[in-house]
Amino acid sequence: MRLDVEYARELDRQDPLARFRDEFVIDDPDLIYLDGNSLGRLPKRTAMRIRDVIEAEWGKRLIRGWNEGWFTAPQRVGAKVARLLGAQPEEVVVTDSTAVNFFKLAVAALNSRPSRRKIVSDDLNFPSDLYLLQGVAQLAGPEYRLEVMHSPDGMTLSEDAVAMAIDSDTALVTFTHTAFKSGYIYDMTSITEMAHRAGALVLWDLSHSIGAMPIALNACNVDLAVGCTYKYLNGGPGAPAFLYIRSDLQDQLVSPIWGWFSQRAQFDMKLDYEPVPGVRRFFAGTPTILSLAAVEPGVDLLLEAGMDRLRVKSVAQTEYLISLWDAILKPLGVALNSPRDPIRRGSHVSLGHPEGLRIDRALIEEMRVIPDFRYPDNIRFGVAPLYTSFVDIYEAVTRLRRVIEERLYEKYPLERPEVT
Amino acid sequence: MRLDVEYARELDRQDPLARFRDEFVIDDPDLIYLDGNSLGRLPKRTAMRIRDVIEAEWGKRLIRGWNEGWFTAPQRVGAKVARLLGAQPEEVVVTDSTAVNFFKLAVAALNSRPSRRKIVSDDLNFPSDLYLLQGVAQLAGPEYRLEVMHSPDGMTLSEDAVAMAIDSDTALVTFTHTAFKSGYIYDMTSITEMAHRAGALVLWDLSHSIGAMPIALNACNVDLAVGCTYKYLNGGPGAPAFLYIRSDLQDQLVSPIWGWFSQRAQFDMKLDYEPVPGVRRFFAGTPTILSLAAVEPGVDLLLEAGMDRLRVKSVAQTEYLISLWDAILKPLGVALNSPRDPIRRGSHVSLGHPEGLRIDRALIEEMRVIPDFRYPDNIRFGVAPLYTSFVDIYEAVTRLRRVIEERLYEKYPLERPEVT
Repeated sequence: MRLDVEYARELDRQDPLARFRDEFVIDDPDLIYLDGNSLGRLPKRTAMRIRDVIEAEWGKRLIRGWNEGWFTAPQRVGAKVARLLGAQPEEVVVTDSTAVNFFKLAVAALNSRPSRRKIVSDDLNFPSDLYLLQGVAQLAGPEYRLEVMHSPDGMTLSEDAVAMAIDSDTALVTFTHTAFKSGYIYDMTSITEMAHRAGALVLWDLSHSIGAMPIALNACNVDLAVGCTYKYLNGGPGAPAFLYIRSDLQDQLVSPIWGWFSQRAQFDMKLDYEPVPGVRRFFAGTPTILSLAAVEPGVDLLLEAGMDRLRVKSVAQTEYLISLWDAILKPLGVALNSPRDPIRRGSHVSLGHPEGLRIDRALIEEMRVIPDFRYPDNIRFGVAPLYTSFVDIYEAVTRLRRVIEERLYEKYPLERPEVT
Repeated sequence: MRLDVEYARELDRQDPLARFRDEFVIDDPDLIYLDGNSLGRLPKRTAMRIRDVIEAEWGKRLIRGWNEGWFTAPQRVGAKVARLLGAQPEEVVVTDSTAVNFFKLAVAALNSRPSRRKIVSDDLNFPSDLYLLQGVAQLAGPEYRLEVMHSPDGMTLSEDAVAMAIDSDTALVTFTHTAFKSGYIYDMTSITEMAHRAGALVLWDLSHSIGAMPIALNACNVDLAVGCTYKYLNGGPGAPAFLYIRSDLQDQLVSPIWGWFSQRAQFDMKLDYEPVPGVRRFFAGTPTILSLAAVEPGVDLLLEAGMDRLRVKSVAQTEYLISLWDAILKPLGVALNSPRDPIRRGSHVSLGHPEGLRIDRALIEEMRVIPDFRYPDNIRFGVAPLYTSFVDIYEAVTRLRRVIEERLYEKYPLERPEVT
């Protein structure tokens, strides 16, 4: 493995997806942005699209915009997201936040298995999902329980352990498909099968998977899924989330939030609730049209690039990063907190160091590298193949080496700045 | 009362708020827009603000935007909305949709009164609120019931009738403060007092009140409120909604949706849920920053105009509209479906006609008047005093007269176009 920048440049020259970088606003090429797994960059098309929605649609068409595309936007964008998920167009909508969608699906799943009282998840899951499950269990009653399996190494979870946890009392099995810290990828096929064999439903949180790898929800016979659109989909800060319900399940499930967008013939304004057929019954209130419009161009870019090609580049980039770690960072005391096997690794690589918090600060303030940090010691380098270059990765590792070797982090306080 | 256009022009010349019309994008002055009670117009400042959020904040600052204003935006905008509500800054946040906020507050209210099993509302309420209450009651268990009081005239509801419905089993009393069809305004003070005397909580839906009249939530000792921001607040299509919780109640109530934005020290990523103190515990997922940013400039405009002055103009405009109705439309068979007493009337006026649906179509297609229509026969003329002129009202009535006198509606089909 060559460790010089010329090699990184060579890899960029050979990259068949390199042209997609020009689709994004990159005003400062010296800023190394490896946080697309938290907030993706701004596609140039999105800036234009939003201007159009504001000025031409809202400004000029006013209320008529609803009949000229807004009403169907959550489904139209959902149908495109479905192609990234290996799902049918009518199985996906974009609406609400990941948290609200997760809540709606989890409650509906429990209600559809009224004789079962157990939810299975694990401690690698994104904490928000665990909080939501705790709330759902409390709402359902004291006889319900949430089993949070413990990952022995903090990075992975074996399928054998999952198999042991699922039993005939299990209503719902739910994991984050690509773990938010380690980037570990669960075996969607085998875990979904295990859940089904026991008569349980499975709900996958795809927030760290969608847009980073091919997903095959239909082929895996997945029941339910949610995920956010502001990471690898580049939908913008707090962009609305998606939800997926396999078509044959849609009319068996009822959302707990009976808002008017889930009502059959909502403009009849009847007084009694009757859910619309299909996935739209999981709508609640009026969709946020501006934020929703920002999702579509990013999805289009991924569809143009093709998820198979994108995954090839993602693996090449995380492999390159890990080989740089091996040669340069490991000798400096940096741990690799992600799986080495690329089949089991998403599009970010986690690096651990006891001084991780201050190193993260120094990378941002001194080095113009923006990674992501997860408490207590975990620096995440996120690779977004649509715009991350091999030179970005080379620069990030080189600058991280300087921060550690020159102890540039020592001037920063030990405490985290409070975010409130 | 003079019926000539010159009189309308005279009223516009005397209008102390006339200058605010220039704050809005009005590219086609011949289009009479009386649907600001459904979707407000685009403020010029909003177009600029969104460009800035997209290009300067998301595009250049990337993830750093969260620490540079995005995290606190739901509270910052909420504090401004609080001034329109007669509430404290820390009692209001802007988040999620009206439906999701209504759901969260209704469930929390029921859970805070576990020995009580009754919810009181009425059939003038916006159907979405009734659907949500039906869902909340079903979720809570078979012993819960929703009493939907019946308005005898389809327009109003007496306080005496409300007093009869509230009893010692009532946990929650909830109405839409300004009725969406008739524009009838409930007596917030007396109904809130009635609920409190019986030991119940009150939840007001302010969607058709906020931005149209002064509101005094604290002075009325209101417990809970929600409302949308895309009507008189001009926040854009599907803009996120607000919720209000009186300060002394905040730490007694728990949201059913335990998303990470409601977690104390959310970036500690602890596995067990502990709600943050205060109103933020009713957050769920990541806020939709683009849609949220569009809310703020419209709120600023209302604060600059002053709600007392705005209400004076609103009443003057609906009175003017009703006197034109009296002279011109009543003889043509048009009914007034709103209260005549301005103290009991919001900022829209409902006009009924057996051919209402086709008249509405003809107004839009032939006459360049955009009102709002509510099934089966109700044409709503919404007055938004920040930009509606007296000439707009004069023109709308004059053009409506032509549609009826010349039977211009007859060429349109009897059925409503399907919205799906």
